[in-house]
Amino acid sequence: MCHCVEVTAASAIPTSSDRSICILGLGLIGGSLMRALQISGHHVFGFNRSAATVEAAVASGHDASTDLVATLERAAADDAVIVLATPVTTIEDLLGEVAAHAPNCLLTDVISVKQAVADAVARHAPGVRYVGGHPMAGTSRSGWAATDPELFRDAMWMVSTEDDTDPSDWLTVAALARAVGALVVPAAPDAHDRAVAAISHLPHLTAAATAAVGAGESELALRLAAGSFRDGTRVAGTAPGLQRAMLEANGIALLNVLSETIDRLLAARDELRDHGTVEILVDDGHRARLAYEAIAGSDPVPITGVVVGDPGWAQEMRRQAHQARVWLG
Amino acid sequence: MCHCVEVTAASAIPTSSDRSICILGLGLIGGSLMRALQISGHHVFGFNRSAATVEAAVASGHDASTDLVATLERAAADDAVIVLATPVTTIEDLLGEVAAHAPNCLLTDVISVKQAVADAVARHAPGVRYVGGHPMAGTSRSGWAATDPELFRDAMWMVSTEDDTDPSDWLTVAALARAVGALVVPAAPDAHDRAVAAISHLPHLTAAATAAVGAGESELALRLAAGSFRDGTRVAGTAPGLQRAMLEANGIALLNVLSETIDRLLAARDELRDHGTVEILVDDGHRARLAYEAIAGSDPVPITGVVVGDPGWAQEMRRQAHQARVWLG
Repeated sequence: MCHCVEVTAASAIPTSSDRSICILGLGLIGGSLMRALQISGHHVFGFNRSAATVEAAVASGHDASTDLVATLERAAADDAVIVLATPVTTIEDLLGEVAAHAPNCLLTDVISVKQAVADAVARHAPGVRYVGGHPMAGTSRSGWAATDPELFRDAMWMVSTEDDTDPSDWLTVAALARAVGALVVPAAPDAHDRAVAAISHLPHLTAAATAAVGAGESELALRLAAGSFRDGTRVAGTAPGLQRAMLEANGIALLNVLSETIDRLLAARDELRDHGTVEILVDDGHRARLAYEAIAGSDPVPITGVVVGDPGWAQEMRRQAHQARVWLG
Repeated sequence: MCHCVEVTAASAIPTSSDRSICILGLGLIGGSLMRALQISGHHVFGFNRSAATVEAAVASGHDASTDLVATLERAAADDAVIVLATPVTTIEDLLGEVAAHAPNCLLTDVISVKQAVADAVARHAPGVRYVGGHPMAGTSRSGWAATDPELFRDAMWMVSTEDDTDPSDWLTVAALARAVGALVVPAAPDAHDRAVAAISHLPHLTAAATAAVGAGESELALRLAAGSFRDGTRVAGTAPGLQRAMLEANGIALLNVLSETIDRLLAARDELRDHGTVEILVDDGHRARLAYEAIAGSDPVPITGVVVGDPGWAQEMRRQAHQARVWLG
């Protein structure tokens, strides 16, 4: 991977395979990343606790093992970038093993909260260099069978960008995201966690409530259910353990947006009961959806004028990302 | 159309064009129905208030007019089935015109609430024969440009089925739904309204609240938004006037399911705040989603052993529909 500090053009995206990638956890995200990196010419190997998953990965031509220590020792020997890709509930033990067997490797992760992971790294692997990441990609399915090397194509990939982030390590992690087709969104861990509470974790709870009320109504209701119910409850189909791990690790930010959601629904209930209308909520929701469509539906606007490592680079990256811009290398 | 009372096999689905269909309102649903019926060989004509829509319909080879009285007089002369396909907020005047100019025609509708329409018919067109209907199909787009003759293929089409429903009229309306590829769900108006409050109207409010909270968080949040936000807020993109017309016409049923939703979210908030988990809501939502997928993902189970017009036929139809069965003719 490219270690140069100044990257100003898309043509400079590093895709070389001179640095190995070691992925811990080969579920939907880790497994898809393994497949995508292998296709893009990287040397990639990984660990998974379950022998069935490792067998499936090996059967499809990948380099995977159930031996964590051996995998980490190999990562240390290769100076590999280690990608933590297990549910957040399992990382403490893994981080201790990383610190013990590969303490000099650069560590990143693909977990959906960033502050809790950063705290866990500081506690359980205090000497390890770490730059967090979070690809905004997924499906309601899980496991190796659900992996897809195109999962990250044009997806947003948040990369933790703090004032003390090492520029070279940041570029290595950002280049990894770019190598599998993702667009880099630089953000601070706490800002990321508030954002994903609103746009990723909250939708699981509103989907769950909508699904439960619909199913509680009648089988007739489920028979009549069409597009609005199908799409509005889709994420409730994700394995409950994965949903809980994700949501509960971001509890405080989720509490805030859940409370705001309840307040909006209470106001709509009062408006409907007292005045027979749902105007305010419907209008607010429509405007919000159009704002989302304007961002999601147009070409990404690149972050410009920032040289990674120059004074203030991280702050300027974050400022532009807050205007919905992305880093394209 | 077939006027026989006994229909027991799918091969007996009436598709003849011996009875004209007159559609009032050529938006997404009415326009799609006009196109689908014309393709299936029916003689179909319609009315729309807006000249632009009528011009678009005529330009694509359809028989449409902005003259309501002339259209209704033609329906009366043809003994056409009249389909009311305008927003529920506009039907009172239209029903008065139907009663004045085509009082002997069979009337149906495609409006998303059934009790309010039945009440309006009783008030404004008291002598007119009426069997309500509601196709569970739509998109977040609207108007003639959004019409699609395949919109109703394999969709559920609720047909009002009360103890005093005329069997011959019921079969005419059910055959119209079948002619455009829909599956018939027989239900009482109030049961329908409770069901759609839960699976169609409520999702608009949870989508609106989720969208508003996401957009209120930050542009960074909207930039990071992926599948869960995209799908969970999709219906908030529907034109606000159409959403309000639909939701507010079903206000009491919607109030009930909205209150239940708020209760579930409040319980989840307390559980998260006090115990750090969202287990109950996530588990309930997951079970509900699987129950929905089991119904939506399997072949429809046909209603059997009912001869339309036999004693108790309507009650038996409703009983089987409450087990998620559909009438296939």
